[in-house]
Formats: sequence, C-alpha cells, structure tokens
Amino acid sequence: KIGKFMKNSALAVLLLVFGYGQSLAQAGDNAKPNILLFMVDDMGWQDTSVPFFNETTPLNRRYHTPNMERLAKKGMKFTNAYATPLCSPTRVSLLTGMNAARHRVTNWTHMVRDNSTDAKDDVFEPVSWNLNGFSPVEGIPGTVYGTPLPQLLKEAGYYTIHVGKAHWGSMGTPGANPTNLGFLVNIAGHAAGHPQSYQGSQNYGSMPGKTTYHAVPGLQEYYGSEVFLSEALTLEAMKALEQPVKEKKPFFLYMAHYAVHTPIQADARYYGKYLEAGLDSIEARYASLVEGMDKSLGDLLDYLERNDLEKNTVVIFMSDNGGLSLVPPRGGQLHTHNLPLKAGKGSMHEGGIREPMLVSWPGVTKAGSTCGQYVVIEDFFPTLLEIGSATGRKPLQSVDGSSFVRYLRKPERRDESRSLVWHFPNKWTGGGGPGINYSSAIRKGSWKLIYSMKDQKLSLYNLADDIGEERDLAGTNTAKRDELARELTAKLKGWNAQMPVYRSTGAAAKWPDEISSR
Amino acid sequence: KIGKFMKNSALAVLLLVFGYGQSLAQAGDNAKPNILLFMVDDMGWQDTSVPFFNETTPLNRRYHTPNMERLAKKGMKFTNAYATPLCSPTRVSLLTGMNAARHRVTNWTHMVRDNSTDAKDDVFEPVSWNLNGFSPVEGIPGTVYGTPLPQLLKEAGYYTIHVGKAHWGSMGTPGANPTNLGFLVNIAGHAAGHPQSYQGSQNYGSMPGKTTYHAVPGLQEYYGSEVFLSEALTLEAMKALEQPVKEKKPFFLYMAHYAVHTPIQADARYYGKYLEAGLDSIEARYASLVEGMDKSLGDLLDYLERNDLEKNTVVIFMSDNGGLSLVPPRGGQLHTHNLPLKAGKGSMHEGGIREPMLVSWPGVTKAGSTCGQYVVIEDFFPTLLEIGSATGRKPLQSVDGSSFVRYLRKPERRDESRSLVWHFPNKWTGGGGPGINYSSAIRKGSWKLIYSMKDQKLSLYNLADDIGEERDLAGTNTAKRDELARELTAKLKGWNAQMPVYRSTGAAAKWPDEISSR
Repeated sequence: KIGKFMKNSALAVLLLVFGYGQSLAQAGDNAKPNILLFMVDDMGWQDTSVPFFNETTPLNRRYHTPNMERLAKKGMKFTNAYATPLCSPTRVSLLTGMNAARHRVTNWTHMVRDNSTDAKDDVFEPVSWNLNGFSPVEGIPGTVYGTPLPQLLKEAGYYTIHVGKAHWGSMGTPGANPTNLGFLVNIAGHAAGHPQSYQGSQNYGSMPGKTTYHAVPGLQEYYGSEVFLSEALTLEAMKALEQPVKEKKPFFLYMAHYAVHTPIQADARYYGKYLEAGLDSIEARYASLVEGMDKSLGDLLDYLERNDLEKNTVVIFMSDNGGLSLVPPRGGQLHTHNLPLKAGKGSMHEGGIREPMLVSWPGVTKAGSTCGQYVVIEDFFPTLLEIGSATGRKPLQSVDGSSFVRYLRKPERRDESRSLVWHFPNKWTGGGGPGINYSSAIRKGSWKLIYSMKDQKLSLYNLADDIGEERDLAGTNTAKRDELARELTAKLKGWNAQMPVYRSTGAAAKWPDEISSR
Repeated sequence: KIGKFMKNSALAVLLLVFGYGQSLAQAGDNAKPNILLFMVDDMGWQDTSVPFFNETTPLNRRYHTPNMERLAKKGMKFTNAYATPLCSPTRVSLLTGMNAARHRVTNWTHMVRDNSTDAKDDVFEPVSWNLNGFSPVEGIPGTVYGTPLPQLLKEAGYYTIHVGKAHWGSMGTPGANPTNLGFLVNIAGHAAGHPQSYQGSQNYGSMPGKTTYHAVPGLQEYYGSEVFLSEALTLEAMKALEQPVKEKKPFFLYMAHYAVHTPIQADARYYGKYLEAGLDSIEARYASLVEGMDKSLGDLLDYLERNDLEKNTVVIFMSDNGGLSLVPPRGGQLHTHNLPLKAGKGSMHEGGIREPMLVSWPGVTKAGSTCGQYVVIEDFFPTLLEIGSATGRKPLQSVDGSSFVRYLRKPERRDESRSLVWHFPNKWTGGGGPGINYSSAIRKGSWKLIYSMKDQKLSLYNLADDIGEERDLAGTNTAKRDELARELTAKLKGWNAQMPVYRSTGAAAKWPDEISSR
C-alpha cells in the first residue's frame, strides 16, 4: 500500500522533506523477494524424477517427484551443484559461507556436547575438529564462531522461520537453538540430525521411557495421529507464514526436512505404490519418504500461488549431501544408489557430494532453463544475502562462497577457472568405502582430483566424459594432477586446514602436493 | 516516529485524503503499551515478603521476594484477587474470559488426550468435563472452542511471546501448541502442567530412557549446565523481546513460570540461606523456588528499564491457584501453607483461590497503591484487550469477566454488588480436605458461600472479619445464605454448569438453592 502511494511523487518529496526517510526505506522492504530455501536431508542426485544427468536414468524412473518437476519447469536446474559429503559440514557452510576446511565442523555433530562422532582408527589420531558445531557466541569450546545467515537476513528486514532439522550445535551450546541464530520462529529444530520417528502415531519419538535425544521437539498437536512428519512440518510452516504474509513483510523460510534421512520409515500415503512397482520393502519405504517430501514442496508452491506470493518468492531446492549408499540401512546393492554417480553419502566421489538443485526466481530465472556451472553449498550464503539486499553488515567470518545470482540471470555463463574444494580429515564410518573417510578433493573445470590421506594416493578424473569416476588419470595426466594437487594444498593451507596425525609417529599426513611430487 | 510526524495536521489530512488511513492506524500501534503478564504456578497468597493481608505475617517474613516488593512499590497491590482452585480452569479462563462453569475445563488436563484426571469416587459419577482443554479449532472432542486472548492481541498489532508453562490442551489437539493460540513465539510451552526437572544438569528432564511427557521442550542450549529452569526461561524471554523492541512493536510477553509447582527442587542459588534460616529441607527448597522466580521478575524489570521500556509497559503479576497445602509433597503441617487463609490448592476456601496480584502501569497506577476490590482471573481477558485497544473483533465465546482497568485508574472505587463464582464438580484428590473436591462458591461483598456437593451442605463466611473462614454463619444468617445460594444457582444454571450424578440413583446433585430451602 505504501509503495503504491509513493507513486504520487509530489507527495513523496513532501514526505522526505518531513523526515520520512526511514519509513520510506522500511517500505522498500516490501520489494525484497521472499526466500524459500527447501532443504532435504540425505537426498541423492538421482532420488527424483527430474533428470539431472544428460539422460533419464533408471533411478529417475523409480522416484516420483512431480513437484520437483513443476519447480524445474518454472525455474532453473543446476546440474553441477555440490554440498559436502556430510550434513553438519554442509549446514555450517550454508550458515556461514565458509568452506568446511576453514570452519572445521568437518564431521557430523553429536547431540551431546564434547562427544566426537569420529569412528575409531588404528592409524590416525582424530583431528581436533569443531565437534560442537557452530556458535553465535564467542568462546564456546569446540565451536566455530561467526555471524549466521538468518541473523543477517533478519537484520535486513526478513521474517525468519526455521522448520525441521537444525543440527547446527550440540546440546549445552547456544548453537543448539535456532532462535540464537537469527530465526524468529523455530519449529521442531534442535541439536539432533535425524528424527527418532517420522510417525505421528509414535509422537515422532516422544514416548515415555523410549524417548531418545532424537525425539522431534514440539508438534504435540499431532501426537497419536496419522500425520507423517513431513506433512506436520509443512502444515506448521504454512501457519508460521501467516504473520509475515499478513504484515507484508518479506520472509525467509528455511524448510529443512528431516526426510529422507534414516530411519527409513514408510510414508503410508505412498508406500504401497512403490511396493507394487516391485521395489524391496526398504527401498519402497525410501521412495515413499522422497515422495512425501516432494508433496511438501507442492503444498508450499500451492500456498505461494494461493496467497499471490509466487511472483515475489525465490524458491531454492537443495540437499545436504549425497544419497546414503551403505547397505544396510539401504536396500539393494552397496553403493548403487546414486548411479551413474559413484558411492554416496560420506564419499568424495560425485555420489557423496553432487546434489539436485533447483532455483525459481520469477522475473529472473527463465522457465525450464538449465545451468551447468558448478556451484557449492558455501555459495548459498552470499547468494541469499544478495537476493535479500542484506549485504550492509559484514559477517564476522571470512566468506569463501560466491554468489550464484549471476548464473540465475545468465545460465550460459561459465567460470572454469574457479576451483571447489572439499576436506574431510575424519573417519565417518568404520567400514570405509570408495572416497569415504580421510579425503580431500578439488574440482576445476571438468577435472577432479581426490586425495586419500590413508592411502597417500591421488586420483584424477575428467567428469566431462567420466561422471562415474571409473578412469583414474592420475598416472596419465601428471601435469593436471600436480596442478590440482598444488592448488588444493594452497587452498587448504590458506584455511589452516587440519590434517590427521599418525598414531605411530605423531607426524601429520602429507599434503596433496607432497604426494604428487613423489 | 510516524506519530510525531502526524502532529503536522495539514499533512495528516493530506495523507488521509490519499487513502493512508490504514497505515496511520498501524502507526498508532506504537502508542500501545507493552504488556508483561508474569504468571506464577501454584504460588500462594502468602508466598512472598509483600504483605497482602492487613499485617505482615510469619510467612511474609519467611519468603524473600525483593522484586515483588519493588513492583508493589511501583504500582498497585490487589488484596482480593482470585483465580480458580486449579491450574487448567484458571488458564482457560485467562485465555477466554469465560468462567470455568461455562468453559467446563474444570479439572486439570492430562498430557495424553482423552485421559481424565478425576480421582475415583464411590458416590459420584465423573462429569463429562472438557478434559482435553481449550481448542482454537472447532469440533475437537473434549475441548472448549473460542477465540484466545493472544490471538486478539496479535491481530491488534502485538508481538506475542509465550514463555514457560502453557498447559492449555492435551497432546493430539491443536491447543497443545501455543502458536495455534496466537503466540508468534513459543518457548518451552506444551501440554504438560509441570516440569520433569528444574535442573539444567538434568536437561529439564530430557534424559534418554528417563524422559516422561513432562520433560520441558526446547532449551537444549542449557542442557548439562547449572542453569535453573526459571533462569533459562528468563534469558530466553529477553532474547525473544529483542525483535519487537528493535521494531518498536508493542509486545505481549506471557511469562508463565513453571515455578513454584512440584517437583519441589532446590534452586541452588537460594537454597542454602533458607536451610540456614531453619526451614526443613522441603520448605527450604520451596522457598528457593519462590526466590528464583522473584529473581526472574527483577531481571525483566531491569530489562525494561535498561531498554527504556519501563514507562510504556504494563506489568501484571499473578498466580494461577492457591499454594499447595498437601503434606507430602509439602513439608510442615497439613493445610498451614497459606495462613491466615484456610487450606490451599484445590480448595474453595481462600487458601485455594486468593492470589498475590500486582499491577504497574506507569502513568495510570499510583506508586505504592492498594486496591481492595475483588477481581478474578476471567477479568484478565477483557482487561488486557482494553489495555491493548484490541476490542475491535468480538471473540466467539461469551466473556464472563469484566475489565479491571477502572480500578487501576481509581483504586478506591468499589463494586460490592458484583458476585464472583467458582465451580468444581470434579474430584481432584482422593484424600479430600477442607473445601476440596465437588464444590461451588460465591463471593459478594465480604460474604462468601461455599457449597459442598458431597456433604449437601452450605457454609457462609464473612471475610471482613473472618478471612480464615473459621466461623460458619450459614445457620445464623439464613437470609444471606439463601440469597447467595439463589444467586450462585442462577449463575451456574445460566452457564449450563455441570453437576455430578449419583452412581446409585443416576440423579444429579442438588443445586445450592435446593439445599438452603431445606
């Protein structure tokens, strides 16, 4: 209303003369686009009917995500979007814009403070990573301190809403509470990284005597009901949106589903059809989790349209790491769940880090467009600040990401000189697997180098014709191998990255460029 | 800023001409006073160093509540303020303005839906009360439906914050969630009426395998710490206030302490001094709960002053029922904990319903003033709506309370023709006690009549010279007895109040006026 009124320019001048400047600036907030960041947990690049590869794969045919298809038709598909191999490093990078090597929340954070989740290892001592996660308050042991994204958006006039999985800090630290991170409203977010149960009939885990730290907080109104967690979160998100919509305030809705993380439970609305399609029971449950999550996306898109918000809302779809490919808990064959990508969650191979990413910004992104530029999770921080015109206050931390808004405007634009870096000096799982545990990686152009700290080995792949990372070219293209090893090393050293230390000698594992020069 | 600007009346007219009316009205919100309703649980009339009786009592000397003293000095003391004998009826009356006989949430609501908390009785069948509490949604079985107070305040422009005990609806119903009742922010409120633990070191009850439905939700950042629950809630309340204060939006902070309800645990900051003063260990713990709660009041008053909010904030202090006087869980002698008042929580005697109430409204209430007019919990609903100029939308329910704002302006004003009515057709505790279980009561002027449904007996007291209800005048002043019995009956019938039914005959217990006419 104020905006329309201000079109009467003579009066606008009069208002400015009378010192109305500040209110005018506030009125300008109405022009800021709303931001819906739809974040899925543990969803792989192929867990969708939207083809992100250059062909429709068997997995694309397995999963039904009609609302992701709808969003892809409306906006832009990023086919080379990355996160880190694990949830906590990704989520802290999102929150801060820092690379994991810098923020040092390199493994997943335990609910209980000061509890390392590193698996036991005979060769390496565990590194002293930030095992308590992120903290908005200085001086909390085992945390990285900085200015969180929602805080900056809130200060820029956004009504900030957190729904679902938070998992930014351990219990007993300020980071455990999303409202300490700049969220005005927190629904169901706490220190835990997955739900105890997705079932309303099981109170999402809050059953006396059986409750663990993973019981989902809040949502009591759905206790004893048949409302699946993904649905409850969506209903609560829409209720929380009422206030900013009524006030015509721009909102930032961080819709962070617990789905499709373990426990792999059936969403009864969709389970039967996947069983009928011939999936084994575990994979049918998994597919039902995916489709229940997709239904939430559809409900939110419907909400935006119904409330005439669709044109002024940026919708971003993302996942936090590759699809889980360990069997069990997944069904089927080990490490086949992200094909044609290699391996899955926890791995430096594409299966562990490449994500299904979609962006719709009406008036900016072209309907049904695709962008092949590689982008990474720490880019979300500067991107959202740019979208929200929230660049006035400098964050305390150094930001490693760079905004991808320029690709939204011009998807054919390319920057092949940029390098992306991953660093995981930890042991996630005792079993190991391809590219899993104690690894670093770098991508530049279509080239990718993986450094295995344990094996003291470099592997080089050309993703342009080998997305499955089947052909190691490290022995063939030594120039590219050494170039990337040097760049990876320089970046890691610049961030003061941690390297694990040998139990036997007390010496640190070599840097990548010390391997290549052998 | 807008308000000041509008003093230029010529421009104001111009703005109105241009259809600026709505924004002008919104700007007027800045003039609305903030409201801090500080609600204590199970605190008795004498659990304070502020004398509410006409002399300083031994209990006033026992308890240390320097911040209540400070608030009393700043504002007005109500010496005849009432709630109902139990938490749920009081809290639903607060939320709706309805008398408990009308809203029928007459006993305390269980966390688990459809679970009656009525104690077993051989004589009466349980009444069909609203055992699931309040619902903001129509058609939920076992609930009373209406428009909740915070919803109306929110619609009137208030930033509404819930902190602490909610206890308005059972799990599995919408009333379980304070954000369904008009609160924008909910900190630690859910379906339960007391905390599993006050201790941060015990995660307020959230200990895997030991967790009950009473574990306090949220507050994970304090897990494993020495932060007492009353302190954690206060810290969170101040954080939640940041947003409306920054935005210069009026706020409604419902600061509903879990203290001083059972479990009677020691607040380590104060426990030692009460032991040293010679109290037994239970009563020393209780006194420490009281003083920890009082410290919270002081911290909030400090916050208001520090942020220059003190002059535009109405502070109201209240409790939800009389102090618990059952032994155990209290120490000392049975029913002595509210002396000179008779009995305690659960009772129709003054010990069960008279509350320590304080109101400070700078510019309205006179410093250090006292008001002897009797007021009751359902008066808070219309009072807060009047204070917040939130009377535009009519609530769905019929409101039984009346605003006490006129007494704030003129404390010597009296209305002795008004009658207050209580109704409890339930069985709270198997043990019974004076005025406990199956009772109704009416106060008019200084006269009070109590009807015991079980005993089929009326008792009449003159509180003017018998605040301890020691001298039953029912046989002496039959005219007053019958007058009050008729008025009580008329009120109850008008509200369609429930009466328990005899197991033996299926007939309902008599109405009070059927007793007096014997």
